[in-house]
Order: sequence, then C-alpha cells, then structure tokens
Amino acid sequence: MTADSHDSSSQTSPESQTPADERRPVCIVGLGLIGGSLMQALAAAGRDVYGYNRSTTTVDAALGAGYDASTDLVSTLRRAADDDALIVLATPVTTIDPLLSAVAQTAPDCLLTDVISVKQAVAEKVSRLHPHARYVGGHPMAGTSRSGWTACNPTLFGDAMWMVTTEDHTDPADWTTVARLALEVSAVVVPAAPDAHDRAVAAISHVPHLLAADTAAVGAGESNLALRLAAGSFRDGTRVAATEPALQRAMIEANDVAVLNALSEAIDRLTQARDELRDSGSVAALIDDGHRARMAYEEMAARGREPIVGVTVGAHGWASEMRRQAHEGRVWLG
Amino acid sequence: MTADSHDSSSQTSPESQTPADERRPVCIVGLGLIGGSLMQALAAAGRDVYGYNRSTTTVDAALGAGYDASTDLVSTLRRAADDDALIVLATPVTTIDPLLSAVAQTAPDCLLTDVISVKQAVAEKVSRLHPHARYVGGHPMAGTSRSGWTACNPTLFGDAMWMVTTEDHTDPADWTTVARLALEVSAVVVPAAPDAHDRAVAAISHVPHLLAADTAAVGAGESNLALRLAAGSFRDGTRVAATEPALQRAMIEANDVAVLNALSEAIDRLTQARDELRDSGSVAALIDDGHRARMAYEEMAARGREPIVGVTVGAHGWASEMRRQAHEGRVWLG
Repeated sequence: MTADSHDSSSQTSPESQTPADERRPVCIVGLGLIGGSLMQALAAAGRDVYGYNRSTTTVDAALGAGYDASTDLVSTLRRAADDDALIVLATPVTTIDPLLSAVAQTAPDCLLTDVISVKQAVAEKVSRLHPHARYVGGHPMAGTSRSGWTACNPTLFGDAMWMVTTEDHTDPADWTTVARLALEVSAVVVPAAPDAHDRAVAAISHVPHLLAADTAAVGAGESNLALRLAAGSFRDGTRVAATEPALQRAMIEANDVAVLNALSEAIDRLTQARDELRDSGSVAALIDDGHRARMAYEEMAARGREPIVGVTVGAHGWASEMRRQAHEGRVWLG
Repeated sequence: MTADSHDSSSQTSPESQTPADERRPVCIVGLGLIGGSLMQALAAAGRDVYGYNRSTTTVDAALGAGYDASTDLVSTLRRAADDDALIVLATPVTTIDPLLSAVAQTAPDCLLTDVISVKQAVAEKVSRLHPHARYVGGHPMAGTSRSGWTACNPTLFGDAMWMVTTEDHTDPADWTTVARLALEVSAVVVPAAPDAHDRAVAAISHVPHLLAADTAAVGAGESNLALRLAAGSFRDGTRVAATEPALQRAMIEANDVAVLNALSEAIDRLTQARDELRDSGSVAALIDDGHRARMAYEEMAARGREPIVGVTVGAHGWASEMRRQAHEGRVWLG
C-alpha cells in the first residue's frame, strides 16, 4: 500500500488525535515492575495517571512517593469509566480473570490494553470475560530480574521495543492511542499479530529463561569449586534465572504451545551437538550456528531503528502492511 | 592438617621465595587475549616479561606498544633457558603439540605453566611431549567475547579466579612461583586437581557456551521480528556466542568427556521440563532449580573471597588440604 491508497472515511489522522490522547487519563491495574514503572514514566511526562494494586504495602509506597494509587479496584475502575481513561492491565496473566470481569462490569466502554508477555492467551480471556471490550494488546520488552514497586524505574522503557497487537480488525484510533502510550515513555512500537508475537517471544525470551535456568542448575550441581570458578559465561548466561519463579512460570506456561515448539528445537540442537561431540569430537555445527545468530543480532542492533514507512494508520490494508514491515525488523516511530 | 604439622625439610617458605620470584623473567608463548593481557599486566607490575607470537601483525603491534615480542620461537625459548624464565603457554590447546616439543628441546629445565581452559588434555600432552617438564598447570577464569592482541587489557585478571593445578606430587616451590604469578596480576588462586577442574569448567563455562549458542540459534531462527523484540534475556544469554568459533571449539572439544556428562544433564533437565509443560502445563521444577542455583551463586559472590587457612605450602598433606578447602569455595590469597 502507499500513503495515498487510504480510505479517508475510516482513517484516523495522527494529528487530530494528539490533544485527546494527551488529555486522556491512564488507569494502571497492577503496580509491579512494569505497571509501576509505567506510572512513574507517564507522570514524569505530565500525563494524568492513577492506579490500583491489591497490596497495601505497594500502594502506601506509591502514595508516599507522590503517586495516585489505591487498593480499591471498583472505585478505581469507576473513576476510569467517569473520565474515559485508557486502562492498562499490568498483572501476571494468571491473575487477570477477575480483573477482566471487573473491568467489563464497571468500566466496559474504556479502551483497554495490557503489558502482558503473551498475547493469544490474553486475547482469549478478553473475548470470554469482556466480549465487547475495546481491546488492543501490548507488550513492552523491558524488565529486570528484580520485581515489584521497589524495582520500578521511570526510564525502564527508554528505547525498548513495545509490541502493539495489530490485526486486520484493529480499530485505528484505538491502535494509535495505545501506540502513543508507548512512544510517550520513549519506547518504539513493533506491530504484530498475536500468534506471531507469541512465537517470537517464545524464541527470544521464554526459551532463553528456560536455558538460563538449565545453565544455572547444571553449574551449581557440580560443587562450590565450580561456582567459585564461574565467570562471565555463567554470570551472564544465568542472570534472568534470578527473576522470581512465579513471574517466569506465569509467562512461560501461558505461552505453552509456542514454548513447546521452540524448546523442542532447542533440545534437538543440543542433542545433535552431544552426538556430534561423542561420535566425531566436534561441536562445530552448534557453535557456528550460534555465532552466526549472535552476529545477526548484533548487526541488527548496530543498524538501529529502521522506521516503518509509507503506512497511514487506518488506510486500507494498514495493519497487514505494518506487520509485513515489522517482520523485516522495522519499527513504528509515530 | 594445621600450620604446625608441616615437615620443615620439604617446606617452601613463601617469604624466602619472594625475591627470586620477583626477579625471574616470564616468557609468554602466544600473545592472544590471555597471553597479551598477561604480558601487559606483568609489565605494568614491573616484571621482566617477553613473548612469542607466530603472527607478524601481533608482534608488530606489541613492539609498537613498547613490549618485548618476537616471531622467532627458538630464539625466544633459548633466551628463556638462558635466564631461567617461567614459561607460560598461552595458545589454544589444539596448537600446543609443536610448542611443547620446542620447549622440551630448547628450554627443558624451565618451569612451565599454561593458561589453557582444560587441564587433563594439557597434562597428557606435557607428559607425552615433554616428560621431564617441571609443569604446574594454570587457568585464569577471565576473558571477553573479543580475542587477539587488540582486545588485550592489563586489568583483565583483576579479581579473577586463577586455577592452579595442585596435586599430591606438585613441587611446592614451583606451585608457589605459579601461584604468585596469578597474585601479581591481581587474580586470586583456586587450587584444584586437573579432573575436578575439567568437570567444573564443563559445568560453568563449556556447557554455558553451548547453551548460549543454542539460545542464539533458536532465537534467530524465528524471524527478524523476533530478533527485533529480543531484550535482556536474549542479549545476556547469547553474549558469549559472539566468541570466535575456533576458540570455543578448541576449549569445548578438548574437554569432551566432562562436557558430554554435563551436556547430557543439561539435555535431560530440558527434556523433563518440556514433558512437564506438555503433560501438566508447568515448568516449575526447572525454573525453581535454576532460581535456587542462581541464588547460591549470588550468595557466594556476595560473601566475597574466603581465604584458605591453616595450610603451609609444602607441609605434609598441603595439596590435599588446599583442594579440600577449594571445594568449599575458598581461595588462596598468598
């Protein structure tokens, strides 16, 4: 498609949305590492932002730091409904069922997004528990091995990739609002379909977490001598194994189908390497493949952000063209 | 053993060795990342140090930076024989056969050590090609994913663990000379038997390199969308896959027996995780084991260096007591 192929009746002009988006309050449900950092980043950007967390400790800490937070879910969602806030679900996927039901009941007309690391499982829950939702999924690729409010950092999303669900039926105005949220906290937007997203994060996040756990378990199983000798390869290769187990399990287990495929490939490659080492004394195939792959990653990182071009949000075919360019590694910069 | 159980006739007093050690020149064979960094670190410490490399480019770079280097192996070894230098083998294990033969022929009486990442394979080569060698093996746990003279750094060994082969028949004076070399460049000494060392590095270095390659290959195999979404878990988990493949292969393949055992354990754990995920939707066992292991590593790192105590080098049973304390995670600080 080209910029002039759009259907102007369905097009959302980015310019015309800016004031409304900037005035629209944001209601964050869950103030852990991602939700809390988002609250801090949006507040720093001057946005009206408030949030809910079930933990009094977290809410007290947020209030003490000058943020607007509450332990009362229903009143928080009622406020969101009253001021037409953008609601951001920011809790583990295992906990969202009652939250979605509460949003459906109390703030059914609000635009809804999330920051959860799987997209098909969340979309399925949304369509079951809040079938008339205005929902555009999201997933910022940012984090640390620490969790909770105390780990929050308003710069967490700087230069991070923020996947925004981009399907043929996605509403262009709602998409733009969610994409702008990401841009506002200095992230860049990667448009993707939910299934493509889930396969991608299985390969570059969920299986890496499992392999980090594996690296750690094998290394620590040897002796304290081994742990004492551990240097860079062990330290870096096991860093994310320090992430709280419940958070790792929630994201991996919610993406089970894609993880099973990618993990089976990881096991097959290791098994071939073991057999090659045993039979011919060589690990050439795996080491060479891994080296090429890391070089491809470093080259892409060195090239920097290549923008998605020639797409007007809402024009005919905009979503599929966004996804096509994203598969080439391009990002939406607004 | 205790400090007063030593046999004073065989004991080497650390104090009495200091002047001789500090005057003894060091001859480094191989000026790659480890050998070149060692040359720079020793020169910075005021030690008389010179070296050989087969590459004119490397030697010219070293000479240009004011170091004493040559492409002439025989004359370099003749010089080492003349001034009773400590010879340090610092080339990949795959290349040392002709170097060991040259040392045996030209500088047979020099004390010999090495910085190679496997110890049983090197010891076997030494006993075959230089059977009367005064040899004490070494292995500094330091490196980067870059290689060659241009990556060298005189602070590479700061706080690094430097394994020094410590067997019942190891000569105490020679052991002390090699251990002091490590201390002189700000490393700390981890005494170990060759087989225990090889099992340990298989678990905390060689298998982590294979799992890093696996992580990279699976991630890059998905799409550029996946590589673009790649964040911390992929970046850190694949860092060492950038190491030159020939260097990775040399260290892993030379430690094949220990690697086969540790790699089989790694595969078994992943296979169990996959089956558990498929059959019950859970990855609890692997994630929990990995988290515990990483916590144990972080706790050991946080405790800092716990010194080996109550051992006098050369006293009866000194080597086995060193190894016993090293297996508890203790280090020799001199």
